[in-house]
Amino acid sequence: MWTITETTFDPAHQNHRETIFTTGNGYLSTRGAFEEGYPGEQRATFVHGVFDDAPIVFTELANAPDWLPVQVLLDGERFNLADGRLEAYERQLDLSCGLLTRRVRWSSPQGRRAEIVFERFASLANPHLLALRCVVTPDFDGSLSFQAGLNLFMDNEGLAHWRLVDQALKNGAALLRARTRRTGIELALAMRCQAGGEDLPEFWDVRGCPTFAVTLPARRGQPIELVKWVGIATSRDGADAPGLALAALQEVDSFASALERQRQAWAQEWARCDVVVEGDEIAQQALRFSLYHLLIAAPRQDDRVNIGAKSLSGFGYRGHSFWDTETFMLPVFIFTSPHIARNLLNYRYQRLAAARARALAHGFEGAQFPWESADSGEEVTPTWVPHFSDPTRLVRIWTGDIEIHISADIAYAVHLYWKVTGDDDWFIERGAEIILDTAKFFASRAEWNPERQCYEYRDVIGPDEYHEHVDNNFFTNRMAQWNLQTALSVLDWLHRHAPHQASRLIERLDLNAERLEKWKDVIQRMFLPIGDDGLIEQFEGYFQRRDVNLAALEPRSVSAQVLFGIEGCNETQVLKQADVLMLLYLLRSEYSDAILRVNYDYYTPRTDLTYGSSLGPSIQAIAACETGKIEEAYQHFIQAARADLHDVRGNAGDGIHAASAGGIWQATVFGFAGLKVSDEGWTVSPRLPAHWKRLAFRFYYRGEPQCVDLRNER
Amino acid sequence: MWTITETTFDPAHQNHRETIFTTGNGYLSTRGAFEEGYPGEQRATFVHGVFDDAPIVFTELANAPDWLPVQVLLDGERFNLADGRLEAYERQLDLSCGLLTRRVRWSSPQGRRAEIVFERFASLANPHLLALRCVVTPDFDGSLSFQAGLNLFMDNEGLAHWRLVDQALKNGAALLRARTRRTGIELALAMRCQAGGEDLPEFWDVRGCPTFAVTLPARRGQPIELVKWVGIATSRDGADAPGLALAALQEVDSFASALERQRQAWAQEWARCDVVVEGDEIAQQALRFSLYHLLIAAPRQDDRVNIGAKSLSGFGYRGHSFWDTETFMLPVFIFTSPHIARNLLNYRYQRLAAARARALAHGFEGAQFPWESADSGEEVTPTWVPHFSDPTRLVRIWTGDIEIHISADIAYAVHLYWKVTGDDDWFIERGAEIILDTAKFFASRAEWNPERQCYEYRDVIGPDEYHEHVDNNFFTNRMAQWNLQTALSVLDWLHRHAPHQASRLIERLDLNAERLEKWKDVIQRMFLPIGDDGLIEQFEGYFQRRDVNLAALEPRSVSAQVLFGIEGCNETQVLKQADVLMLLYLLRSEYSDAILRVNYDYYTPRTDLTYGSSLGPSIQAIAACETGKIEEAYQHFIQAARADLHDVRGNAGDGIHAASAGGIWQATVFGFAGLKVSDEGWTVSPRLPAHWKRLAFRFYYRGEPQCVDLRNER
Repeated sequence: MWTITETTFDPAHQNHRETIFTTGNGYLSTRGAFEEGYPGEQRATFVHGVFDDAPIVFTELANAPDWLPVQVLLDGERFNLADGRLEAYERQLDLSCGLLTRRVRWSSPQGRRAEIVFERFASLANPHLLALRCVVTPDFDGSLSFQAGLNLFMDNEGLAHWRLVDQALKNGAALLRARTRRTGIELALAMRCQAGGEDLPEFWDVRGCPTFAVTLPARRGQPIELVKWVGIATSRDGADAPGLALAALQEVDSFASALERQRQAWAQEWARCDVVVEGDEIAQQALRFSLYHLLIAAPRQDDRVNIGAKSLSGFGYRGHSFWDTETFMLPVFIFTSPHIARNLLNYRYQRLAAARARALAHGFEGAQFPWESADSGEEVTPTWVPHFSDPTRLVRIWTGDIEIHISADIAYAVHLYWKVTGDDDWFIERGAEIILDTAKFFASRAEWNPERQCYEYRDVIGPDEYHEHVDNNFFTNRMAQWNLQTALSVLDWLHRHAPHQASRLIERLDLNAERLEKWKDVIQRMFLPIGDDGLIEQFEGYFQRRDVNLAALEPRSVSAQVLFGIEGCNETQVLKQADVLMLLYLLRSEYSDAILRVNYDYYTPRTDLTYGSSLGPSIQAIAACETGKIEEAYQHFIQAARADLHDVRGNAGDGIHAASAGGIWQATVFGFAGLKVSDEGWTVSPRLPAHWKRLAFRFYYRGEPQCVDLRNER
Repeated sequence: MWTITETTFDPAHQNHRETIFTTGNGYLSTRGAFEEGYPGEQRATFVHGVFDDAPIVFTELANAPDWLPVQVLLDGERFNLADGRLEAYERQLDLSCGLLTRRVRWSSPQGRRAEIVFERFASLANPHLLALRCVVTPDFDGSLSFQAGLNLFMDNEGLAHWRLVDQALKNGAALLRARTRRTGIELALAMRCQAGGEDLPEFWDVRGCPTFAVTLPARRGQPIELVKWVGIATSRDGADAPGLALAALQEVDSFASALERQRQAWAQEWARCDVVVEGDEIAQQALRFSLYHLLIAAPRQDDRVNIGAKSLSGFGYRGHSFWDTETFMLPVFIFTSPHIARNLLNYRYQRLAAARARALAHGFEGAQFPWESADSGEEVTPTWVPHFSDPTRLVRIWTGDIEIHISADIAYAVHLYWKVTGDDDWFIERGAEIILDTAKFFASRAEWNPERQCYEYRDVIGPDEYHEHVDNNFFTNRMAQWNLQTALSVLDWLHRHAPHQASRLIERLDLNAERLEKWKDVIQRMFLPIGDDGLIEQFEGYFQRRDVNLAALEPRSVSAQVLFGIEGCNETQVLKQADVLMLLYLLRSEYSDAILRVNYDYYTPRTDLTYGSSLGPSIQAIAACETGKIEEAYQHFIQAARADLHDVRGNAGDGIHAASAGGIWQATVFGFAGLKVSDEGWTVSPRLPAHWKRLAFRFYYRGEPQCVDLRNER
């Protein structure tokens, strides 16, 4: 189960498939569009950190100049699936090495037939190198033409981001230099093309679209091979982007040997990350597919970037990063790829100044991380968006203003990284400051309620975004309290293990005795009521909202929010995701099984698991495991597993649900295997679905590789 | 004075010059960008009626696929003004025939020198034909290459509107078919290129950028000529746009003969429209320049389109039409080119249904025309725009909601067309209905004030947009009253001259006796106070606003609105344009000289004539003429004349101030010549500036050509 295969081409689903068949290498990703193009495609390459300004969403990953174009002409007739007759079709993504292969047998309108095979990959061994091969086996005698080019003129759903800087022919390579229109990032593409071992003889120097071309005699049954190499670099990589792009072409020899290096590089990734499931091909495929998509989006050489909610695989959320990274994706990297996890956390560390500026602008202290984050670390959540049914009306988006739990989520991930890796050096140097400064924010953001004699957070949004402007969201209150508690123990630890850094941070963050007393007071008197039966109210007044029998509304094809309207949904108890269960998962050891069970039973039927948040099902699966409901857990797991592969939410064309991909791994490792770590070591408490015969995976604990191999003996 | 000439190239002003040097033929216009491109250019071709959806502004003229690209290579070095050395430069627009010529002497970085002359025009004889010639005279022996292409990948300041439909080589012509992404309008370009009388041998079939290329031997001093013909058509012109585009290429023979036909076609335009001023070259040039820009934007074959506030010459206002057309441009066409005026008025007639729907949606009767109008006739004024200093904040634009005088302005233009042309057939068939239905709107929109016992219009914006949400704007009240008065007399006239149509309209618009009584009552009791001294208060409470000494703020480089802020300006008496003077101009015969004089004296110093509305100065000039202040009139006139040619407002790069262009003609003809028409005929009362030796112009009165030739004997 190392492949994802498609055996028919359906234009109605092409955008979904472009997402699925995305190739990448942690430096960039390219959606699975056809080399020759197809009407309605969403052709895109996204390079980490290459943002440009955009209206409404402030900034977005700029769809890079296109490296894919290859035109094949059979006796002058242009191959494309919109014309002629498609006699055979197969597209396959090899997850083991990130190779995308398309094999078609096509007959032209005039009756010229050929088998055409495209292969391409983004090199993991050299992130600046892209490789593409096209082998055509004609069924006729005549001529065969290849036109292989680059294309500056890409856009993000209509918004053009690039200007041509220059183009030239350099030592047989076509060089295209472009610059983002507003942020001024230079991107260089260098291209070499060979057919039959020879450089293509014609160079079409069209501005923005440099193209190599050749026409060769075609002989029936004799394959002709085109190889296209593209080097890519940006001014973020160094001063001489064109030089770096050209240098990437220097090292190539044959497609076969480049592919061999690719296989070796990927083998190392899977040696760290693979999860083996026996007895369940769907689960096995979903796990590898999820890990593949996380790995192609994971920055390896760059700690100035983060992973967007849709990874680098689509236009959705514009490349912006959310808590999805820290809460859903980071655990995967922390356990399997600490070097990647560290890069992602460094991204946040470097944006502490922006987070401080934001807290200050809102009248608070400490560091308030933005709900949506891109290059600068400033808040980039759109403030207003046009109403979907009436563009003269606008809808106010509040998450950027009041969904404050993100700062605690980041602190939590920092802490988890430290606990699992034992990377004290990094924690002392960088991690601790994040935890301390977010704690400082939460202490200043807490509001004293003199009537109740407790601290509160009013007017917030919790993870369940169906309810806006709520008071005392339990998740937010408790995570803030956890952040403050953890900050105090971190400070203790620093005093003992890194006193110099403790002093530096105390001075830099002004952590005087009075402030720390305030923290203790906030911790002590945080408003966190739990009912006698253990039931936790998601936020104040939630239980008074209208109860809706969600099950009675099935089957649905839209979310509860669309069904009831934004305001209408706010008035019900229906959840986008189960806020309280999320908290009980994150702080599992702090709450009893009984509490988890009563909350699971209450909130699960009230959660819009089908069309609510894609973050929901995997956490739901873990919660079900913890309450012993393995079959229910498996249903939730499978729902997460189908999110992208089967496009069950209908929006996978916008890009991979990267948080869900991370959640699938978490549901498997923390749910079915029951992995738990502590300072003393790690334990598993397996509770595999009945039909799973084996579950095996690897991870690192305190720098040492660990191996878990569970057999289901039931 | 038939030319506009530029003798140096300054990249800092290139966008302004692109506007100035726009060429067009009433079907499309192309900004004066360089054939080979230049960094920072705003390269654009706009085709009438080819709108596509856009965020915020709803719809905009889509920047059409580019027909200009020509690359010239001297021994392989690409000619462009950003490299090498520019040894001589001249660009000249010949207003007499719409020919744009650029003549450069350039030395390449490697020292290859050549004289290069580009000429181009949009054919007035065949609106689907575009012609371009490039003659290169090398100063060296070697090679010369031409690459002449089309480019699909154009955008509107970043927003891409086009998708490729197809491209092909057809009988030696390259055909490019594109479609707007959202409105689905097809546009076809067909291109033929010849050098030395031969078709260019190479065809570079790059997707979206079909290009012809040739490399020729270059001999020192021997000119080599490239001629590029482009045919253009859209699905708005007929079912077979590609066929129409290709057909346009059929009729071409030589550039010289096409240019001769162009001269003949333009000679006919100038025979109708030219204004001769002797003794003032600046005025002479400005008048011809203004008329040229109106004529290249004026639809001759199409009555489904209107002229935007920036004509077809720039991105400003997105091709949307305002009252600028009816109040400023239409008088020019009504007097010189009634066939064009009729097309423009038909555009409004065909959008009566949309205007009725809009009145209904607002709870009114009759026809309420939109403040900004594009293809559908629905309101396309942006509702909210991002604040210029903080994009997370939005500014509400109210003109689309409450600047209601547009409907009366349209009725006024209809009436003027009828009175001047005597086109009873059109008026009976179409024009009368506009006047009646806008009157119906104004009657229903009027609010009865029981205290005052009069009708009012509250919460409106008058022509002076520095003051929003005002009550009883005198201009609006009086024009509404005029519209109702005129409607009653039109109905009378119809009863006498077209009783059948009178009955039809009475039935269709439900003009029952009760309604007409109401109209009379509204006319009778409209709130229109005039002070004992003849001073008119622009709106209720205007005199209580803060008086500002504008003169004391000179010199400024920003508008009063930017200086004081939107709200701050609202609180002063400073005007964007003189609302009351505009009214006194439109209804001149209804008010005494004394009233005009007292209002001119009061409002002129309070009007932001330098950076307020570009519509202001020309009307100001006319008012000054009417009060006998000829020198002052001339100062206002010159300010209007400099608006585009000298970019005095700094925004001419966004496109021509088309209303100002119309205003310049009106200031000359109605101001300095004092032309007045009535049912009895026409009169002039010349009051030429002292240094003018002669003013001569032509116009049509009741279908007959008239000629005015005034000599200044002072």
